[in-house]
Amino acid sequence: MAKKTTIYDIAKALNITVSTVSRALNNISTISESTREAVLEMAKKMNYRPNKVASSLTSGKTYIIGVLVPSAQIQFFASVIHSLEKYLKSFGYSILLYQTNESLESEKNGISTLLEAQVDGIIASMSLETADVSHFEKVKEEGKPLIIFDRTHDDLQSPMVKINDEHAGYLVTKHLLDQGYKRIAYITTKHRIKIFKERYNGYQKALQEAGIAINADYSVFGELNVEGGYLGTHTLLKLKDRPDAIIGGDDYVALGIIKALHENNIVPPTIGVIGFANQNFSEHIIPSLSTIDQQAMQMGKECAKMFLKIIERNHAEELILEPVVLEPLLLPRASTKRS
Amino acid sequence: MAKKTTIYDIAKALNITVSTVSRALNNISTISESTREAVLEMAKKMNYRPNKVASSLTSGKTYIIGVLVPSAQIQFFASVIHSLEKYLKSFGYSILLYQTNESLESEKNGISTLLEAQVDGIIASMSLETADVSHFEKVKEEGKPLIIFDRTHDDLQSPMVKINDEHAGYLVTKHLLDQGYKRIAYITTKHRIKIFKERYNGYQKALQEAGIAINADYSVFGELNVEGGYLGTHTLLKLKDRPDAIIGGDDYVALGIIKALHENNIVPPTIGVIGFANQNFSEHIIPSLSTIDQQAMQMGKECAKMFLKIIERNHAEELILEPVVLEPLLLPRASTKRS
Repeated sequence: MAKKTTIYDIAKALNITVSTVSRALNNISTISESTREAVLEMAKKMNYRPNKVASSLTSGKTYIIGVLVPSAQIQFFASVIHSLEKYLKSFGYSILLYQTNESLESEKNGISTLLEAQVDGIIASMSLETADVSHFEKVKEEGKPLIIFDRTHDDLQSPMVKINDEHAGYLVTKHLLDQGYKRIAYITTKHRIKIFKERYNGYQKALQEAGIAINADYSVFGELNVEGGYLGTHTLLKLKDRPDAIIGGDDYVALGIIKALHENNIVPPTIGVIGFANQNFSEHIIPSLSTIDQQAMQMGKECAKMFLKIIERNHAEELILEPVVLEPLLLPRASTKRS
Repeated sequence: MAKKTTIYDIAKALNITVSTVSRALNNISTISESTREAVLEMAKKMNYRPNKVASSLTSGKTYIIGVLVPSAQIQFFASVIHSLEKYLKSFGYSILLYQTNESLESEKNGISTLLEAQVDGIIASMSLETADVSHFEKVKEEGKPLIIFDRTHDDLQSPMVKINDEHAGYLVTKHLLDQGYKRIAYITTKHRIKIFKERYNGYQKALQEAGIAINADYSVFGELNVEGGYLGTHTLLKLKDRPDAIIGGDDYVALGIIKALHENNIVPPTIGVIGFANQNFSEHIIPSLSTIDQQAMQMGKECAKMFLKIIERNHAEELILEPVVLEPLLLPRASTKRS
């Protein structure tokens, strides 16, 4: 194992003082340009690496940002992580990742772990279990920026980036109505996290606008995955007055819907199917799946921009009162194309 | 912004010396149990957080591990990241993420950035551009463990975790032969990264074993994505002697193959289609897609275990000469099921 090069080694190699080396490396102008160049060259040759941890003790900054998400395996979060890392990197920041795996207990640990690692701030999206949000207050108590994205919570006042979920629910329903579907069902999940409720509100709003009475039988609440869509569809197909279109809570739910329809020899758009999230596969399956682009990449970028703005303004979160709200994009495809 | 609690504040609040507080917090037994408890209680009440960065200067450890991957948006890597974070967390480590986006230049920057952040070691998978691997040597020069996973390179001697890619290529081809397919084509990519070549070697090996001559027209080298599979299939369908099965370099290539077949009114398994990687959607599309499970979760866990082993043995990478090689699992599904 090679011994780590220190400024003492550089000083010795050049036969100059440690103080001169330090001034050269810290770009202090009280030394000659030729000395500075000689030091930098020797530092490079000797593979010198400045101790960022030590310098963070003086600056109080680590240039590390904590990112807390339910799971990197969920493509939406993987995309936000991808975007955050890509954007923040260009400003000299790295990201420290913590996954909650949808557990409140793990989320509490995550906040502590990230704070102990001396992150400069935290960008987070809540677990499905999170009802009480007091553990997030610790971040603010330490005077560090906390930005919440996508999965927000009414009890937590913090800068946030979200998507207009009610409008997303409205858009998919309106699209189905425009395609001539009349008996529109919705397979989703019940959670304290607002986004699912908001999308559902949008669904109800679009139906009401069209003068269509809400049929309680057409709302199925289950798990937000393929199995949930599959089971929900079997329930819906048993109804005397079958739906002619089914909205899935996300694209995986929609896959389950299509699977159950297939078992009944029904292929969309005979019964229309639409999802949320525009997973990588959605465009490419047959028939291609209509869905909503939730702008994960843009969300990551907006979080990063917001973080940098707060840091520049010296932690003035109070200056950012209004959440950044991104607009969902409807992606109509073959699975709902009647006309 | 709340002022950060220091051990001085705790000492003042309890009217004891700073040294006593320090001994209590560091669990040194030269103070009474009642004092220790009083200090811990006050520390909790005052929201005291030990400065891990400062203590890392003494211990030389940050309990942060650098993870360098092509992209968190590629599901295989998202799963490895997920698994790494989940496993290492239970040993008190956090992961600092760096994405190369398949760029060699970015990979070089990534190694520097992670080393500057004083990570305890690096777990990495190479970019598609990486031919020269000298930048990885810097990690070893600093005496830090470097573990390479999945995308390895002959020039780099380092502990590694990989999957038996030749066997993966062999397995898919043998499966197609067993199902009665005879004219088996392969749409893949040309890269210096070994895994693609090794899978292709396995394909050739299985054909040779079966006494089937390699038909050069049946190997198409393009982009490793949906478009690559789509274009490659159109090329293959123009052949006078059309293939009766097509292997896609990954599941997205397979999606492109199915799309092109569909345009020619062919549905698998009429022409058999199989991929690699077992993406989340593969099981659930219609027909369900045969593929290879590359054991991403297990790969993350093995990397984490290897890292912990090296750290425990005080950086003795030389003790780990043999790479950990995981066995790929064949997942036969409807898209290749003739019998």
